[in-house]
Amino acid sequence: MSLCLRVLKPRSSLWRRSQSISTRSFPTTPTPAFPDEYSHAEIVTSQVPGSKSQQQLGRLAALQNTGAINFFVDYVASKGNYLVDIDGNRFLDVYGQIASLPIGYNHPKILEAVSNKDNLAMLAQRPCLGVFPPADWVDRIDETLLKVAPRGLEDVNTLMCGSCSNENAYKVVFMWFQNKLRGGRPPSKHDLETSMMHQLPGTPNLSILSFQGGFHGRLLGCLSTTHSKAIHKVDVPAFDWPIAPFPKLRYPRDIHQAANEAEEARCLNEVERLLKGSAEVTKPEDSRIAGMIIEPIQAEGGDNHASPAFFRKLRDLAAKHGVAFIVDEVQTGGGSTGKFWAHEHWELKNPPDLVTFSKKLQTGGYFAKGEFRLKEGYRIFNTWMGDPTKMIILKAVLDVVESDNLLENVNITGAYLKTGLNEIATEFPALVANVRGQGTYLAMDFPTEAVRNEFVSLMKTKGVASGGCGGNSVRFRPSLVFQPKHAAEYLDKMHEVCKILAKA
Amino acid sequence: MSLCLRVLKPRSSLWRRSQSISTRSFPTTPTPAFPDEYSHAEIVTSQVPGSKSQQQLGRLAALQNTGAINFFVDYVASKGNYLVDIDGNRFLDVYGQIASLPIGYNHPKILEAVSNKDNLAMLAQRPCLGVFPPADWVDRIDETLLKVAPRGLEDVNTLMCGSCSNENAYKVVFMWFQNKLRGGRPPSKHDLETSMMHQLPGTPNLSILSFQGGFHGRLLGCLSTTHSKAIHKVDVPAFDWPIAPFPKLRYPRDIHQAANEAEEARCLNEVERLLKGSAEVTKPEDSRIAGMIIEPIQAEGGDNHASPAFFRKLRDLAAKHGVAFIVDEVQTGGGSTGKFWAHEHWELKNPPDLVTFSKKLQTGGYFAKGEFRLKEGYRIFNTWMGDPTKMIILKAVLDVVESDNLLENVNITGAYLKTGLNEIATEFPALVANVRGQGTYLAMDFPTEAVRNEFVSLMKTKGVASGGCGGNSVRFRPSLVFQPKHAAEYLDKMHEVCKILAKA
Repeated sequence: MSLCLRVLKPRSSLWRRSQSISTRSFPTTPTPAFPDEYSHAEIVTSQVPGSKSQQQLGRLAALQNTGAINFFVDYVASKGNYLVDIDGNRFLDVYGQIASLPIGYNHPKILEAVSNKDNLAMLAQRPCLGVFPPADWVDRIDETLLKVAPRGLEDVNTLMCGSCSNENAYKVVFMWFQNKLRGGRPPSKHDLETSMMHQLPGTPNLSILSFQGGFHGRLLGCLSTTHSKAIHKVDVPAFDWPIAPFPKLRYPRDIHQAANEAEEARCLNEVERLLKGSAEVTKPEDSRIAGMIIEPIQAEGGDNHASPAFFRKLRDLAAKHGVAFIVDEVQTGGGSTGKFWAHEHWELKNPPDLVTFSKKLQTGGYFAKGEFRLKEGYRIFNTWMGDPTKMIILKAVLDVVESDNLLENVNITGAYLKTGLNEIATEFPALVANVRGQGTYLAMDFPTEAVRNEFVSLMKTKGVASGGCGGNSVRFRPSLVFQPKHAAEYLDKMHEVCKILAKA
Repeated sequence: MSLCLRVLKPRSSLWRRSQSISTRSFPTTPTPAFPDEYSHAEIVTSQVPGSKSQQQLGRLAALQNTGAINFFVDYVASKGNYLVDIDGNRFLDVYGQIASLPIGYNHPKILEAVSNKDNLAMLAQRPCLGVFPPADWVDRIDETLLKVAPRGLEDVNTLMCGSCSNENAYKVVFMWFQNKLRGGRPPSKHDLETSMMHQLPGTPNLSILSFQGGFHGRLLGCLSTTHSKAIHKVDVPAFDWPIAPFPKLRYPRDIHQAANEAEEARCLNEVERLLKGSAEVTKPEDSRIAGMIIEPIQAEGGDNHASPAFFRKLRDLAAKHGVAFIVDEVQTGGGSTGKFWAHEHWELKNPPDLVTFSKKLQTGGYFAKGEFRLKEGYRIFNTWMGDPTKMIILKAVLDVVESDNLLENVNITGAYLKTGLNEIATEFPALVANVRGQGTYLAMDFPTEAVRNEFVSLMKTKGVASGGCGGNSVRFRPSLVFQPKHAAEYLDKMHEVCKILAKA
């Protein structure tokens, strides 16, 4: 019967199922299975995107550039770790809406929250949170962002998205820096007047130090601190702010410890040279560094890591030279490194000055030490200042992270996946290298950009939605409900694809 | 009985009602009354904000600067034109969430849309619209933004908020400008490489021309084109881009026609001088103007107007010098000037190159001519690229604008309100002047900032939520369901407050 079906209906789900369920053994986690999740990925069209997606793509192409569109999604049918496209293809999703999917598609707790009648009025309005906040606004912050506030950071502001959060973090750092220079006095009449003409002293020549390979967004301020891909930057004017090297480590890190320590020392020396140069500036027109921004793991730049010791030294350098230390946790924040914030892995004695967030948190914003609190209103402001409906979702997300032990799940699943990736890398040494990362925030390298792209493309035909980063890396950004059985399914498909690529 | 109640219960709603319902006659509009709306504003606490708001304010002040907070809002109880605070005060709202409230609070059509089960999955996810758009994404654009697309602008991109929309409009203008210089060729390898180091030619020295008094947002790029209030700009580095004067007109405009024409000519001459200077640049390191941005009515800067002829000439100057003409309709767009887009009043032969929007549209974004379409993906991009849940709301909004004849309502109500404001200005010439505007997008001046603030504050104690702009103006930004009876209620209260201020 089964054989018969295989012959007669090569694309029936029964046939697929027999192909797809992994025979690998995998560990258990304390996290319950996602309710009513699909058992496996399944591709039903001869090519991806399928004809329905292509038709929609054609329509959208009349209105805008569609170069980044993968396919159109059936968000009703998508569930847990499986993203379903409008042609009925079902993908195991290890990309998670560019790391912004917190607990899978259509989680019952989120569906329950947004269909709760008590939340209806909030879903129907778009209030100015900075002027007319809703009745329960402080409660909503209390039960979401404050529950996960990084240690030592008492202030929090919500904002629109990751770029907006970084951009506003820079602004608050500039204001803090000038406030220090003025000895805590508010801006003078002369400061205010000159700022209207972009002249000193009202418009100071301050900068944010950033790192080669870093990505902090695409608005004009944060794009000046983004150094991952040229196509994001070319043709756009930029602030001429200093850029320091980020360590180029060799993996596995423990085997290359001495070389990596030397590389980190080289980068720290350059940072210190830049900070010293800035501190020695005497003329008001010369540029001074007010803050530095860094990702715990450079994501878009290729999942570049550095050691906790590197970050601890960097943090101390910033403090020593009176420069704000901003940690950009837009992509790393929210649990996928196995801790809620990736910078927790560093065990800093002196916490970061500011931590920016977005993506998995569903709302943008930043946490800050109290000394970054502004005295005047309307200086960090926009019409909306975030969106309370995303706080409704965030509440459900954080409740599930806690009740379903998702951080433990991430650690167990991540370790299992990493082991499996290393086994495949050992089997295909000419193909896969530099398996690295923490929790499920993993990555690996391919020999070239072309091979990497071919790998991602073949994985898509096998039913895996994944994404690259840097020149030749693939990154894992599944949601926090990604479990060992999903990792096993991924590894099976990756093994198949590597066999194909190795023969090619 | 009524008298008795007044004596015994001076704050009962019956007493208030007898005080509040206007005896003014007012015109009818084709717009039905807002379902189950309150009949009038009502203040029940001895001061605003009341004790409950003050308690919440105290809690929020532990987390962030709260200098811009007016009071905390009961968004369940708010309805139509009435904003209800958590102390039970009910305000007639002529500020409309800083011009971002399209059709009043809790409109039944919006409530229906967000509680429609078909929309549930969309409310529960936050997709990457630029990579994995939802199945009905093109339909959603079709039935919302395309229905109101400005004539001649075929492209549309959704974005996060007004600032984000302007900032991305600048980016697309810079890319367009460089593309023209390259004769349509893509960026070269050298362009790409130099852009990573912020060097010529990859990082060009381009600018956006803006106008004194203009407001285009607070991100680092658009803040360089914002010139309304120093407190928004001070301490923040800026691009040193050219700034042209915006006409300082005298009102009523028809009485001062000759002087106003001369003033507009002065400003146009200066714009032309700047554009000519830019066009004559020969060295690649010298700054060139790639685009200009202007609001149809300078809102934050004080509701400053210019004539349609001024804008027509400006548009032609931009075209003549090969510079993109961006119209910022973040605040003016959406119908409150009596046309859906304020720039429709200009009757341009050559449409704007780009029109940015947000606020009443509930989602940010820009419309553009086809020539601004990028050839490469990921150049105008962020993780979310907007929010499809706001398109659900926008659909309901636009349906109601059409079914309830809201543009006609705006024109009738605006004319009635403007007449009433002019009558009060005639009665209190030392207090109120320069009544101006189109539709319900009106404004008036007070002698000083202090008197203006006192007026806004006294109006609040009478149950009116309103907002200032510029140094000494009050702006009207009610939603589109603001009707003559609401205008009559406003005028009654304004008359009372002016009597108090005139005696002071």
